[in-house]
Amino acid sequence: MTGEWQAERDWPLLTQGLAGRLRQDCMKQWLDFVGHPFVEGVASGTMEVEAFRNFLIQDYLYLIQYARACALLVHKSDTLTAMRHAAQLLSGILDTELSMHVGYCRQWGIEEPALEQAEESIELLAYSRFILDRAQTGDMLDLLVTLAPCLIGYAEVGARLHASPRTVREGNPYWSWIALYGGDEYTALVEDGVCRLNEVGAAYGAQARYPTLLREFTTAVRLETVFWTTARSG
Amino acid sequence: MTGEWQAERDWPLLTQGLAGRLRQDCMKQWLDFVGHPFVEGVASGTMEVEAFRNFLIQDYLYLIQYARACALLVHKSDTLTAMRHAAQLLSGILDTELSMHVGYCRQWGIEEPALEQAEESIELLAYSRFILDRAQTGDMLDLLVTLAPCLIGYAEVGARLHASPRTVREGNPYWSWIALYGGDEYTALVEDGVCRLNEVGAAYGAQARYPTLLREFTTAVRLETVFWTTARSG
Amino acid sequence: MTGEWQAERDWPLLTQGLAGRLRQDCMKQWLDFVGHPFVEGVASGTMEVEAFRNFLIQDYLYLIQYARACALLVHKSDTLTAMRHAAQLLSGILDTELSMHVGYCRQWGIEEPALEQAEESIELLAYSRFILDRAQTGDMLDLLVTLAPCLIGYAEVGARLHASPRTVREGNPYWSWIALYGGDEYTALVEDGVCRLNEVGAAYGAQARYPTLLREFTTAVRLETVFWTTARSG
Amino acid sequence: MTGEWQAERDWPLLTQGLAGRLRQDCMKQWLDFVGHPFVEGVASGTMEVEAFRNFLIQDYLYLIQYARACALLVHKSDTLTAMRHAAQLLSGILDTELSMHVGYCRQWGIEEPALEQAEESIELLAYSRFILDRAQTGDMLDLLVTLAPCLIGYAEVGARLHASPRTVREGNPYWSWIALYGGDEYTALVEDGVCRLNEVGAAYGAQARYPTLLREFTTAVRLETVFWTTARSG
Repeated sequence: MTGEWQAERDWPLLTQGLAGRLRQDCMKQWLDFVGHPFVEGVASGTMEVEAFRNFLIQDYLYLIQYARACALLVHKSDTLTAMRHAAQLLSGILDTELSMHVGYCRQWGIEEPALEQAEESIELLAYSRFILDRAQTGDMLDLLVTLAPCLIGYAEVGARLHASPRTVREGNPYWSWIALYGGDEYTALVEDGVCRLNEVGAAYGAQARYPTLLREFTTAVRLETVFWTTARSG
Repeated sequence: MTGEWQAERDWPLLTQGLAGRLRQDCMKQWLDFVGHPFVEGVASGTMEVEAFRNFLIQDYLYLIQYARACALLVHKSDTLTAMRHAAQLLSGILDTELSMHVGYCRQWGIEEPALEQAEESIELLAYSRFILDRAQTGDMLDLLVTLAPCLIGYAEVGARLHASPRTVREGNPYWSWIALYGGDEYTALVEDGVCRLNEVGAAYGAQARYPTLLREFTTAVRLETVFWTTARSG
Repeated sequence: MTGEWQAERDWPLLTQGLAGRLRQDCMKQWLDFVGHPFVEGVASGTMEVEAFRNFLIQDYLYLIQYARACALLVHKSDTLTAMRHAAQLLSGILDTELSMHVGYCRQWGIEEPALEQAEESIELLAYSRFILDRAQTGDMLDLLVTLAPCLIGYAEVGARLHASPRTVREGNPYWSWIALYGGDEYTALVEDGVCRLNEVGAAYGAQARYPTLLREFTTAVRLETVFWTTARSG
Repeated sequence: MTGEWQAERDWPLLTQGLAGRLRQDCMKQWLDFVGHPFVEGVASGTMEVEAFRNFLIQDYLYLIQYARACALLVHKSDTLTAMRHAAQLLSGILDTELSMHVGYCRQWGIEEPALEQAEESIELLAYSRFILDRAQTGDMLDLLVTLAPCLIGYAEVGARLHASPRTVREGNPYWSWIALYGGDEYTALVEDGVCRLNEVGAAYGAQARYPTLLREFTTAVRLETVFWTTARSG
């Protein structure tokens, strides 16, 4: 459709470098992820509130496991600069993002004790522990590659919904979520992450290791897709 | 029902020691696991063949991840005796069990290439990577506790179905599976494993660590339960 | 000798709780550590400057490995509170302590590039990689126990030299080092660490695991002792 | 000297592939390793028996840590073939090599309890824990590269001493040691290992990662060199 947002044209960064190549080479799974009914329900504002609440709770639990992956990133870094970079990601999650998420959840009627007592869903366990296993089994590049779908996928979803004339803005309870992932701050974070992945990819032999990297990226995409449905099972 | 098999009476081992206490303290989740419709479908012989085939494929993939957990058990052992014991479990899987499983699958019309090319299900990823994460995060006791539901649960299911007058024997395509887990060889393996868990529990402070151990045991039981349903999603 | 500082009397904290018990139960090795000729050379101000410089360089490299151990502490923490606590230790090293150490080294004529290009000594490799291996093999308690000799040993050395009438103050080039480890800020850090170790010890079964904990504590003490001599081989 | 054994000419395998390139690029450190006074003392038969005994004890303790590294190799393998290969190395050490080593030690008057109660030397701790840390931090290639100096270095020493007209044969108490590492069985093991390293190197991007690999190889060579001197400090 003319006028519709297109990743390839409207945000070329998504198609460049190692992340861009990986995204391109599992396009079928990628489209299942970024075009998931969950995403459409957010865009139209028609998703059930209860499902979104369940998603937010699991997303909180995901952030904790993501922080653990960042801790392994510090451990696996081989320069002080890389260690400091990873430690800032880690502090960013523990000191800032989790508090913001708690505040956002409160707006949806979810109090902090409910977050703390929630049980991890199967979808969350599969996704987060897959990442942590790759982190332990492989090196820093394996870890960054399995984290990449989350980083760039949410950015693509955010940018597309933010720009799309079809997205409902007025009265859409999910607009703040769209604004977050389509906003400048998250965009800057993603651009930084994509650059970092390219640097690490070059130094750690991404070219020769590509088949393995594509396999782990594709599995992470598949698990991200399933994670959208955690809303139903949460 | 009079005459029915009862774990507590018919195989007291299941109720003794650390494993017995853990099983008792999450009895609700435990009964969901050992009394799952999958188990009933096996007992009556009415389970769909296709579902059982999917289960067998995922079980093959599970064995591979289980072997990786055994490798971590070798790494975490602090005596030569413990290392050798864990290495024998590892060799047992890689050299014997996997081949037996391949042979068994062939009887069900699943050839080895199909096993090798199969994709890990969400249920398998959740369960196996949870175990591997606990293995890396905790010590040998955490690892053995998360492996315990698989060990004793299959034994309990096997023993019960093997003994139950309600189990269909004649013409039940799943009788060989029941005979395997209800048989003397698997029973001996379980008795050995339960003893080992008690020894390790005593030396590694299971008493004081019980709340954490119960939490990880219960999660593993929940993931085992979900793993039965991998048959449908495989 | 009357009037001399005595750990047991002058800082009872060193003799209390899990850390105190461990220290007491390897007293022979402990005295070799805290009463090492390096310590006496610092107290009298007679240590060769070149040896102290070598020590400072290896201590810089040690901090980097210590930060990696803190990253594993974040990964192994099982509550958000514990994760945040460990992440603050980590940031403290990467953002503050390393910079302070670089500044201190500059006062001794060691420029930052010299620190960055220095080769890890055998003593440093043995000590730091032993800690990291225990961190990976065991759980959070094993990690904290192997880190404890560093924490409380430097505090004991600092407190004793700071208080001792035999320590040379005027013109002693090492007085600033003594003032650092005998000062209030480091003292507070140690008191916090000792409390934390007791809490974790209780929750993780230190009582039952004591023989193993003592063995790893004693090895760490031995490696700390050898680390003083890195000054000569650096 | 004419007629002397030369690695480059007499065993071209040592100069080929990834291992050969790494060996070549740290030739200074390599010569310190393979031409160490310990090696000369073995060749001439003049090394003190007590020093050799200490070496044998530490070598026993090294085998145990080496087995733990092989366990991590199983865990990090991404195919069943690779897992089985690594598990065979592991079983080989635990079931065969350790027993042979115990038998060999007995010939030198060292009984098994003495082996079991021996304390790990600083040199052993530095070397073995460095390998285990690289194993956890990096991927399978990092692990194989840090294990390579041991594999090919002992082969080179064995082959050279075995062939050299200068090596004392008659009445040399160390001839059996030379015969072991210069013998066909160990040679075959090394040839297999060198091939495996090349395969893994190709699949895991050794070309792009070469600077890091060379750094870890060189550190391992340095630690092997120091390990010869464990004989004195044991």
